[in-house]
Amino acid sequence: MSNQQQQTAICKKQQQQQPKHDDKHQNLIRFSLSLTFSALLNLILIVSFFLNMSMNPKHDQLTWSRKASEEAEAVSSLSCSGHGVAHLDGLVLDGGLPVCECDACYTGLDCSQFVPYCLIDVDNGNPFFLEPFWRQNAENSAVMMAGWYRMGYEFADGSLESKQLEKAIRMLHDTVGNAITKGRYIVFGTGSTQLFNAAVYAFSSKDSGSTTAKVVASVPYYPVYKSQTDLFVSRKYKFDGETMSWINQSEDSTNFIEFVTSPNNPDGQLKDVILGGKNVKHIHDLAYYWPHFSPIPIQLDEDLMLFTLSKLTGHCGTRLGWAIVKEESVYKRMMYYIDQTTYGVSRETQLRTLKLLNVVLQGNGRELFDFGYNVMRSRWERLSKLFSLSKRFSLQDLTQNNCTFFHKELRSVTPAYAWIKCENDEDKDCYSVLWDEANIKGKAGHDFGSESRYVRLSLISNRQDFDLLVRRLEGLISQEMKGVCEPSNYEGAFGNLTT
Amino acid sequence: MSNQQQQTAICKKQQQQQPKHDDKHQNLIRFSLSLTFSALLNLILIVSFFLNMSMNPKHDQLTWSRKASEEAEAVSSLSCSGHGVAHLDGLVLDGGLPVCECDACYTGLDCSQFVPYCLIDVDNGNPFFLEPFWRQNAENSAVMMAGWYRMGYEFADGSLESKQLEKAIRMLHDTVGNAITKGRYIVFGTGSTQLFNAAVYAFSSKDSGSTTAKVVASVPYYPVYKSQTDLFVSRKYKFDGETMSWINQSEDSTNFIEFVTSPNNPDGQLKDVILGGKNVKHIHDLAYYWPHFSPIPIQLDEDLMLFTLSKLTGHCGTRLGWAIVKEESVYKRMMYYIDQTTYGVSRETQLRTLKLLNVVLQGNGRELFDFGYNVMRSRWERLSKLFSLSKRFSLQDLTQNNCTFFHKELRSVTPAYAWIKCENDEDKDCYSVLWDEANIKGKAGHDFGSESRYVRLSLISNRQDFDLLVRRLEGLISQEMKGVCEPSNYEGAFGNLTT
Repeated sequence: MSNQQQQTAICKKQQQQQPKHDDKHQNLIRFSLSLTFSALLNLILIVSFFLNMSMNPKHDQLTWSRKASEEAEAVSSLSCSGHGVAHLDGLVLDGGLPVCECDACYTGLDCSQFVPYCLIDVDNGNPFFLEPFWRQNAENSAVMMAGWYRMGYEFADGSLESKQLEKAIRMLHDTVGNAITKGRYIVFGTGSTQLFNAAVYAFSSKDSGSTTAKVVASVPYYPVYKSQTDLFVSRKYKFDGETMSWINQSEDSTNFIEFVTSPNNPDGQLKDVILGGKNVKHIHDLAYYWPHFSPIPIQLDEDLMLFTLSKLTGHCGTRLGWAIVKEESVYKRMMYYIDQTTYGVSRETQLRTLKLLNVVLQGNGRELFDFGYNVMRSRWERLSKLFSLSKRFSLQDLTQNNCTFFHKELRSVTPAYAWIKCENDEDKDCYSVLWDEANIKGKAGHDFGSESRYVRLSLISNRQDFDLLVRRLEGLISQEMKGVCEPSNYEGAFGNLTT
Repeated sequence: MSNQQQQTAICKKQQQQQPKHDDKHQNLIRFSLSLTFSALLNLILIVSFFLNMSMNPKHDQLTWSRKASEEAEAVSSLSCSGHGVAHLDGLVLDGGLPVCECDACYTGLDCSQFVPYCLIDVDNGNPFFLEPFWRQNAENSAVMMAGWYRMGYEFADGSLESKQLEKAIRMLHDTVGNAITKGRYIVFGTGSTQLFNAAVYAFSSKDSGSTTAKVVASVPYYPVYKSQTDLFVSRKYKFDGETMSWINQSEDSTNFIEFVTSPNNPDGQLKDVILGGKNVKHIHDLAYYWPHFSPIPIQLDEDLMLFTLSKLTGHCGTRLGWAIVKEESVYKRMMYYIDQTTYGVSRETQLRTLKLLNVVLQGNGRELFDFGYNVMRSRWERLSKLFSLSKRFSLQDLTQNNCTFFHKELRSVTPAYAWIKCENDEDKDCYSVLWDEANIKGKAGHDFGSESRYVRLSLISNRQDFDLLVRRLEGLISQEMKGVCEPSNYEGAFGNLTT
């Protein structure tokens, strides 16, 4: 062995005696990789933690309200096959899940079964056509109530009315331009229903010996004016028929209280007062005087104007209406009526209304009214096209008008109801004709003080119910046309209608 | 240099030419430590992530309802110095935070400033004494409403009343044993206030030519029976004073509608009917016939019984009352009245009531009634001890009675109101005496058809307001005692009272 070989052998031996440096090197690489991976994992976990925090900044802060939120979201997540809806206070199944409440013509636990030739109920005025708007605005329209929310009778200022809600109502009228509220009093009612008689009471005489005021309305009129006034059998006021029949007698000493409904329910006509003179008081029911149902030609400034949430946002069940009142004495008598009959409007109702109106105000009303107007316009177009083919049935004739809100000189016609006339001599009871021949339940003309030759059909139901109604009416009119049209024409006509 | 030295030198050189193995070793240790630390951090982060997930299993699932929950919790977190409360629909400050609504005798933005010798308003019947119970049950009593919650007029069965709520009401009466509901009809009203006239209407004649029914009540009576009946000036019914004045005439052909209030408002006495005969109908107002206010000696089964949420859970602002009705014809007429005057009770009100009653039912009513009874018992004990020292003022005398609910033969007396009599000849107007001498605003005796020598003070306010009332009454009685007692006796007496 040479010297050099010896040296190398010794060196190797020394190297072997030391730790295995190559293994160490490999370990070092492995450790480096592991550490890099671990550090990266840490980084990802930390970033995702802060990302989670920033996306749900307060999720850990939700305490007492979380359970109620979860309940509400669980209920709303039930699809009900797209033909129904579940609510928190619906009937519950054994498992505790609420039952789906099905649209007309659907049944079954999940509303998946279609009921052929079911009854189409368009008697009521449920404005479900606005439900999709509220689903689109779910976040801003939700409201959470604590168990101790407003337990007392009065608000902080001793009144029964939320000043915040009053402010929102005034802002909305200013934005829409349909009624003047500046310097006017506002009275809330449990629906405008309660305000009908509150207004009649306020306008009737305080004197015990005075004559009974005559309450009147123009045919066709909303039936509750009569039935509610009749209910109390008051010595102070009495429903006394159609306005027109008193036109030459309103100057004498009899006191009149005239209901003026504009747009009118059922026929959607814009109306003006009929009776004049110092003995006549007017109650202007403006439930439908909003841009989705009506042109807004002028900003009204009447002595007593009634509005309701039901036909503004579609929340009928909430039961909130309001009166805008010019004279303090009338306002005070209306407030006294509300105090005495229900001691104000439910505070839950007032809070929820405030939430809903704030959503409407956020878009200066445009979003809600654009949505509503577009739906109603397309519905009226479909319907008027269909009825133009019929000689047996006619729709009310509505003239286009200007609308300051949409800045349009001539806006489309978008009434809430179809006021249908049966034109044939033999069809004296139009309500029965639709029921018997098409299984459609409308509201009979005589309910509105009108001829039985008329029937009112609601156009503000949800999309599916409206589609079913149109299909049923198409069937009815197609029967009529079979006698007068060539089949090809009739088919073509309906081909267009159903697209 | 020897051979060996040469070898070592060469080896060192070779070693120097290789990576520094010692440094590597140290790096290895550093890496190991870092990796261990990093892995530990990984472990901690992962564990905390899963812990967080398991504690808030669904926090990521809350979507549309989160914002409303956060708003409600933010408002409820305002302490208002413990002397007030903030609500979602309260007035808001510039920053958007709701203003604190302060208790009586406190003021300032955060209710921190005490107002010395302020007016103690115990005129109203706000049952704030139950508010702490609802704060204790915050999670189960909260309710979240979606923007599309019950937009329609009717429930799924076409009615205006939640069947779930009706069921809860029946269960509660069964649990408490205060009224029989089996086979009885239930009518909801916007507060029992609305049901007063609904019942009067239902009991009055349908015939147009019949006589006017006399509506009567026993003095002292709840003022709204008279003022509400007067309001309508109906040909069908008329408030006609005190029941006792008709005791010998109820057998003739006149129809009577007698209000029977038990326990009575204002004096807490258990009452029975006074008039009898086939022409007499009875409206049993049982607003206070719950275990926190009254003994429950028997389960009542009257023709028409009225209850209200206001005095059961303390939610006056919610405006929900109900009637339990035996006869179908009476039930139908009441339902017609509700339909015509408000078209049912707000659906928000019905949902919230359902939530609240479910909380009461969860503990078989024990939790709520134990809480309420204990508060009211201690208040009455303080008050009766105080008034026992006075000869100028006296409290109503209430006898102990058995209570089937608490399984007690003799339970303490726990009325909702003190019905105070000014005994001195010169104190003819007791309301003014308390106002002038102690700045206490009660409700005057003549409002209840009684002598002005009486005044009603509410005992169901919150703790602080009640304490202030007692201190003010102590001051009043101490003035009286200065003339008759030795100072030491008087001091001693009050020493016990204020502990």
